[in-house]
Amino acid sequence: MTELEKCMESLIVIFHRYASESGDGNTLTKKELKKLIEGELPSFLKAQKNPKTVDCIMKDLDLNKDDKLDFEEFLPLIVGLSLACEKCYVLREKKSKK
Amino acid sequence: MTELEKCMESLIVIFHRYASESGDGNTLTKKELKKLIEGELPSFLKAQKNPKTVDCIMKDLDLNKDDKLDFEEFLPLIVGLSLACEKCYVLREKKSKK
Repeated sequence: MTELEKCMESLIVIFHRYASESGDGNTLTKKELKKLIEGELPSFLKAQKNPKTVDCIMKDLDLNKDDKLDFEEFLPLIVGLSLACEKCYVLREKKSKK
Repeated sequence: MTELEKCMESLIVIFHRYASESGDGNTLTKKELKKLIEGELPSFLKAQKNPKTVDCIMKDLDLNKDDKLDFEEFLPLIVGLSLACEKCYVLREKKSKK
């Protein structure tokens, strides 16, 4: 498997690791989302000043308002974070070339 | 770094590994996209029957029609593939539980 394929597999496996804890097993409840963010994105969570971060993220991502996130609803979180990280990466690379 | 953080880092590093080959270094030309798909998504490419797969993908992703893909334009490819893979993952899990 290539690095990029492994990366996509990880996204799926991590999502289902948390999603399988309760309910239908294929969606994240708010509680499971909280566990996922605490476990997998601790630096992101620490940087947030709003104590209701998880509530806000849930509200933003839960497009069909069923109080759970399927994989499709979850992915924009990863996209948004990756985009933000990539902007930092480009700035850092620019500086290191100076 | 957590598994999910590593995964986001990989996405960024892989994109830039190919994007840095020519041009401004932060975008993929069609040639670089082709190399990335051939190198990182060989199974996906083999499954495609259309010989113009890379041209079609480039056209789909290049939203601002500047003939190159920035990281934001590139991510929907990964999202689309991950979604398709996740559907298979769920079906396989269902079968294995029977």
